[in-house]
Formats: sequence, structure tokens, C-alpha cells
Amino acid sequence: MNMTITEAEREALYKVIYSRRDVRGQFLPDSVPDEVIARLLDAAHHAPSVGFMQPWDFIVVKDLEVRRKVKDGFEIAHAEAAGMFSGEKQQAYRSFKLEGIMESPLGICVTCDRSRTGDVVIGRTANPEMDLYSSVCAVQNLWLAARAENLGVGWISIIHHDHIRSALGIPAHIVPVAYLAIGYVSFFHATPELEQAGWLPRMELDTLVHHETW
Amino acid sequence: MNMTITEAEREALYKVIYSRRDVRGQFLPDSVPDEVIARLLDAAHHAPSVGFMQPWDFIVVKDLEVRRKVKDGFEIAHAEAAGMFSGEKQQAYRSFKLEGIMESPLGICVTCDRSRTGDVVIGRTANPEMDLYSSVCAVQNLWLAARAENLGVGWISIIHHDHIRSALGIPAHIVPVAYLAIGYVSFFHATPELEQAGWLPRMELDTLVHHETW
Repeated sequence: MNMTITEAEREALYKVIYSRRDVRGQFLPDSVPDEVIARLLDAAHHAPSVGFMQPWDFIVVKDLEVRRKVKDGFEIAHAEAAGMFSGEKQQAYRSFKLEGIMESPLGICVTCDRSRTGDVVIGRTANPEMDLYSSVCAVQNLWLAARAENLGVGWISIIHHDHIRSALGIPAHIVPVAYLAIGYVSFFHATPELEQAGWLPRMELDTLVHHETW
Repeated sequence: MNMTITEAEREALYKVIYSRRDVRGQFLPDSVPDEVIARLLDAAHHAPSVGFMQPWDFIVVKDLEVRRKVKDGFEIAHAEAAGMFSGEKQQAYRSFKLEGIMESPLGICVTCDRSRTGDVVIGRTANPEMDLYSSVCAVQNLWLAARAENLGVGWISIIHHDHIRSALGIPAHIVPVAYLAIGYVSFFHATPELEQAGWLPRMELDTLVHHETW
């Protein structure tokens, strides 16, 4: 492989990064071909991992009954969450469409096996969270690959680990990192939906950049 | 912006993903132009974040003295780590080049402000780790953007949080997520160095994929 990235390739990467969205409401029912799913998973599998431990597993979910169990878990955690917001914020929270588990044809759960490759892992000695972070890098690779396949992805984080474990039969020692709803979409929003709704603004990058020290 | 990704753009994204490496030993001293650094940071700033909280900050480090302090922190944690491996593994560990803090001209620290936007964050209610995961997504965006700029990146995880905080003046309530060494390189390895060294093999993807349930 020629390892130099051309200007056109660089621009393509930036286009994918800037047009990626967290999709909740625009899913189409069209199924995702298995060869496309295979490309997403292989891209995820080529994420960086601490000490090359590759701590991830991927559960590919198409079955309606299994997705219904995941959706049930979302509903429980979503009701709990609504109670944590007060006043207008709670009204706004309740008005948001926050997941497309049943409308999208595909779910992929990304996990982390913290015991993979043994107790001592290069690069995880001072920072035990590095294995979880590796699985998150796999999620982001998968998300960008999906965007490059013109597929929408929504990260369903409003669900308890125990519910995901039970819905998907995940062993107790495995940490669920992300459940992603995936499918083709009617359109991609130009900007994040929570930004459009006035929930929070895009922060000015300048306010987040420090030089030499904080 | 036309939101459809073409086949050529898709292939470019995959090229970037597959040619990305964790770089330790091939850094060149050539400085990274400020406009390129700005593109990396903006790509990171467009990562997904839970509830659109954008919990990240970025510390851009060029100063030799500041980088020396980071390197000192690596040396301490590296010596501790070596003692955790036994026999041949320890010998191998000691033989690996694991960071390029001083050889690369640029460091970027990515952090997470867990208190940003208040106590209750959409999507973080059931999973408090989601803010940290958002900052990791920013790291992966930055890493891929750097690769698309033909820049190498190495994630320095062999260092304690307190040392990073002290070296970079990071407030106590801010979590350091990643310290990245960044620079142009003499070449990119075709495969991960730990794979080449026989430390661990690339796992077969098929063994990591489950259908419907684990």
C-alpha cells in the first residue's frame, strides 16, 4: 500500500468527520448488506489498542426480539433520566427523540474484555482505563466507516450495563462499551440536533485550546 | 455541503484507518505548521460528545522544558511497569521503544472536564463514563486527521495522571485522557510494531464477532 495520503484523500477524511452525526430519527428500514457490515467491523478491529490487546468483541443484532429487549432497557433508563431534569429542561428532554433502536435494521454492540491477554498489558500499567478507551477508539472507527458508507449511527448510552448484558447474553466479566443503532437514512442533519434545538451551543474552539500549559 | 460520500471518499477513509499507526521511533524534528495543528484540533472538536457537552480541552505543547517534564513522568511509570513483567516478557518490554516525546516536535494533551455543562447530562445519566468516552472519540478523530496530514501520532499512556497534571498545570478536577506525541515521520510501519515483534498476533476478526447474542 502506498502510505502517503494525498490532498484529495485528506479532504475526504475531513468530509467524513464533519458530516458524521448521531442519528436518532432518520433511519430507513433498508437492510445493511453483510459485506458492508463486514467492512465496518474490520475498520473497528483496526483501531488502536493498548499493548495491541484488541480487547473488543462485536455483537451484530438484527433480530427484532433481541432489539426489543434493548429498547425495553432504554425505556427504563430514559424514564429514570427524565426525572433528573427539572422544569423546562425536563420538558425539553422528554421532547427529544434519543434513539432509533427499532427503526434501524441493525444494532452493533462493542464490548471490552479487560482480562484479554492477561493481567499485565503494555501501556495499561499506569492507566487501567486504557483498555476501555481502546474499545471506544474502535467505536469511533466504526462510526466514521459507517458515515463513509452513507450509514447513520446512533450511540444508545441511556441503558444500564446489566440490561445490555441480559438482552445480549454478555458474560459478567465483559464490559459493554457501546450499543450502536445503524442504518441508511433519509438525510443527515447539517449540524447536531441538540445544537439545532438550542440545548447547548457549539463551543468556540479557541476557548478550549491552551498553549504549553493549561 | 453535499452530504453524500462517494466511493473514492469512502476508500480514502479506509486508507487512513488502515495506515494509521502508533508511532514511537520514526519522528522527524520538522515543526508542524500552526494551520495544520488548527485542523487537527478542529477535527477533534467535531467528535461525538454525550449530550453535546464537548467536555474536552487541548493543551498544545512545543516547549522543550515542558516536554522534558512529561518525559520524566514517562520514565517513572515505565520503570514501575517493567517490574510488573517477568522473565522474557520483561526483557522484551525493556527492549521496546514506547514513546517519542522528545523526538517529536509537538505534544497535544486531550482532557475531560466532567463538570462541564452541569451535573445532569443527556446520555450520561445511566453511564457516567460517557464523558470520558467522548474525549476518547476526540482523540481518535485527531489521530485519523493527523494520519490524513501524513503526521505520526503516539499515545503516551505510561504516565500517571498526577504527573501529567503537574507537568502541564492541569487543574485537579480535570481528567487527563491522552498525551499524544505528534510529528512528521521517516516512514509508517505497514503493521503495528508489537505485532511485528511477535508480542501479540492480530486476532482473527471472525473470533470476535457474535450474532444476535454473545
